[in-house]
Amino acid sequence: MPAIAGMRLATGAAGIKYKGRTDVLLAIFDEGTTVAGVFTRSKCPSAPVEWCRAKVKGGKARALVVNSGNANAFTGKTGREAVTFTAKLAAQAAGCKPAEVFLASTGVIGEPLPATRFNGVMEGLARKAVPDAWPDAANAIMTTDTFPKLATAQAKLGDATVTINGIAKGAGMIAPDMATMLAFVATDAPIAAGALQALLARGVTDTFNAVTIDGDTSTSDTLLAFATGAAARHGAPKISRASDPRLKDFRKAFEVVLADLAEQVARDGEGARKLVEVVVEGAVSKRSARRIAMSIANSPLVKTAIAGEDANWGRVVMAVGKAGEPADRDRLAIWFGPHRVAHKGARDGTYDEDTVSAYMKAPEITLRVALGLGKGRDRVLTCDLTEGYIAINADYRS
Amino acid sequence: MPAIAGMRLATGAAGIKYKGRTDVLLAIFDEGTTVAGVFTRSKCPSAPVEWCRAKVKGGKARALVVNSGNANAFTGKTGREAVTFTAKLAAQAAGCKPAEVFLASTGVIGEPLPATRFNGVMEGLARKAVPDAWPDAANAIMTTDTFPKLATAQAKLGDATVTINGIAKGAGMIAPDMATMLAFVATDAPIAAGALQALLARGVTDTFNAVTIDGDTSTSDTLLAFATGAAARHGAPKISRASDPRLKDFRKAFEVVLADLAEQVARDGEGARKLVEVVVEGAVSKRSARRIAMSIANSPLVKTAIAGEDANWGRVVMAVGKAGEPADRDRLAIWFGPHRVAHKGARDGTYDEDTVSAYMKAPEITLRVALGLGKGRDRVLTCDLTEGYIAINADYRS
Repeated sequence: MPAIAGMRLATGAAGIKYKGRTDVLLAIFDEGTTVAGVFTRSKCPSAPVEWCRAKVKGGKARALVVNSGNANAFTGKTGREAVTFTAKLAAQAAGCKPAEVFLASTGVIGEPLPATRFNGVMEGLARKAVPDAWPDAANAIMTTDTFPKLATAQAKLGDATVTINGIAKGAGMIAPDMATMLAFVATDAPIAAGALQALLARGVTDTFNAVTIDGDTSTSDTLLAFATGAAARHGAPKISRASDPRLKDFRKAFEVVLADLAEQVARDGEGARKLVEVVVEGAVSKRSARRIAMSIANSPLVKTAIAGEDANWGRVVMAVGKAGEPADRDRLAIWFGPHRVAHKGARDGTYDEDTVSAYMKAPEITLRVALGLGKGRDRVLTCDLTEGYIAINADYRS
Repeated sequence: MPAIAGMRLATGAAGIKYKGRTDVLLAIFDEGTTVAGVFTRSKCPSAPVEWCRAKVKGGKARALVVNSGNANAFTGKTGREAVTFTAKLAAQAAGCKPAEVFLASTGVIGEPLPATRFNGVMEGLARKAVPDAWPDAANAIMTTDTFPKLATAQAKLGDATVTINGIAKGAGMIAPDMATMLAFVATDAPIAAGALQALLARGVTDTFNAVTIDGDTSTSDTLLAFATGAAARHGAPKISRASDPRLKDFRKAFEVVLADLAEQVARDGEGARKLVEVVVEGAVSKRSARRIAMSIANSPLVKTAIAGEDANWGRVVMAVGKAGEPADRDRLAIWFGPHRVAHKGARDGTYDEDTVSAYMKAPEITLRVALGLGKGRDRVLTCDLTEGYIAINADYRS
């Protein structure tokens, strides 16, 4: 991962839940850094989500603090105090106002966050922060993730080359609106906060919002984007509107980073052994295609069949039928990879169990449904549902 | 189980999927029997569901054929032909019109139903049908159920005592609208078809439609009710309208039978070890309470925590938050059984982990959420989500 000019990162151990485990990330941004964010639609958001949602309106960021081990969600007044206290510590360490500090927490819900443990830790992190600590940062925010999630891309902005880096953590409690618990993207491009927000809101639609693991929506989902503007020093033009045509290449690279991170989240679903792509076409609209794709991607019966490497397309029919969207059973066609298994409301005449079963052994499965009603098309990513998911989630707290 | 005057039952082996396994149930009703039904809301219903939905409008029933081993769903023209053929065979055996025969099939989706195997079987079943074969009938319709599901109740109708019997099969692919794959209820009360339909439609709201196992909706969900009218011979009044005040006691008993069967379905969810009752109160409406209760009852994270006997009420907060219904985090209270674990948006001051953990070991768990917003209240039943569910559904077809 390349560095992003205008920001530095450091990770450390604050002992939030376990002693000696890396559980805190501090990012420090140069003056002039803009920020945008999208958050969970949960009606019971965590204290850091409420803080960020309010502060992102200011559009300015100087620091980001992320902790694992405790989500600071459903922690009442204590939770709000913990957020204020942490922001104050980080502001002192970064030399900025608390309102320019952004916070995210992941871990157990309902336990008070022992924020006093950050005391003394922030100053040390600020001193040791370096531009190239992205892999450490991605590691520090993991909970049940099995691998750190990083993505990077470059784009032309005017005559300058700018860089976009991103990290994410996912694993479980992943449903659209927002799709992942925590993701952070940063660029050196000089983009005004309003424009960055518009890019982000558009960018999540077919990336993070098109990923589901278990249909559960976290109280803590947070995706923040930071633009340090450092590339202005080597000639990148300052962008104030998302509609600026000079953003064309940047927008594409930005969405590549979001899509890459979102796919890594789906691939690393708790207990997952397979990445599953669900494509729905011929729906009455894209929105309808999305709903049907999500109905399939969230169906426990479809997901367990894929875990069992069983080409059980009957369950796909079931999931199409339960979506509540326009569908005509007798026009439906279904493919597993290149193999058409169902056609015009019945099993395909060419269906060969052995061929399709062999396909199901692949680590990446594409499941395509053609409704034959219109031009609506959409694609979502998910994973299979295995005994591993149950094992992880039946003892997560212990 | 007592007999229901005016009907006889027999079970047999037609070799639909396996040789020598009981896989077909035939019920024969006396002339004058009325029928009502509620069916899956799937947009891709099975061929028998389409048949029943059309024929139930006639209001008359003389035979019911139920097979396991094959759902006859997504089987196209062949599936419709199989239904017509089966109805004709049963009509010959019962001495009625095919339009008075009701059909239900459960099992794998997408495989053609080999209906010719019913040839010769129906006549034999019709000959051996007896009034008291209810336990055999409940056994014959099982698929992954671990126990047969039967319920019975008596009621006063005028001066006569009438009986209501019911059987059901459930286990997986259980979501509201309709809640179970197959259930059949019969009574000797003389109730007109329209009145029976109204009783049934009202009766399912807080019984079968308030049960969920995995949020998946079958293509085959069918609940049929039959009223033979035989009790008219010992003085039961003929009822033509559901609003008839003489139905008061009957209605109550009828709903007891539906609730009993629905609870058995929840208790026997695939892989389930615990029956879970979710109560939501203080919502803005009953409808809102139902949606929040279903969000909790369908959450994989809540259900796996219960499987792990973990009082992880943070996940209950998450599920309330994702329901999209009015909720105020800071007014929320949550109980596991008698133990209040959360209060006013934070962990309850009296919370004692050991006490609550001991409660979680019980085979029946009640989870209550008070929203503090209004008077809306509802209750749904579900079960925990265990590795057993995955094991059953990852190899169902093999």
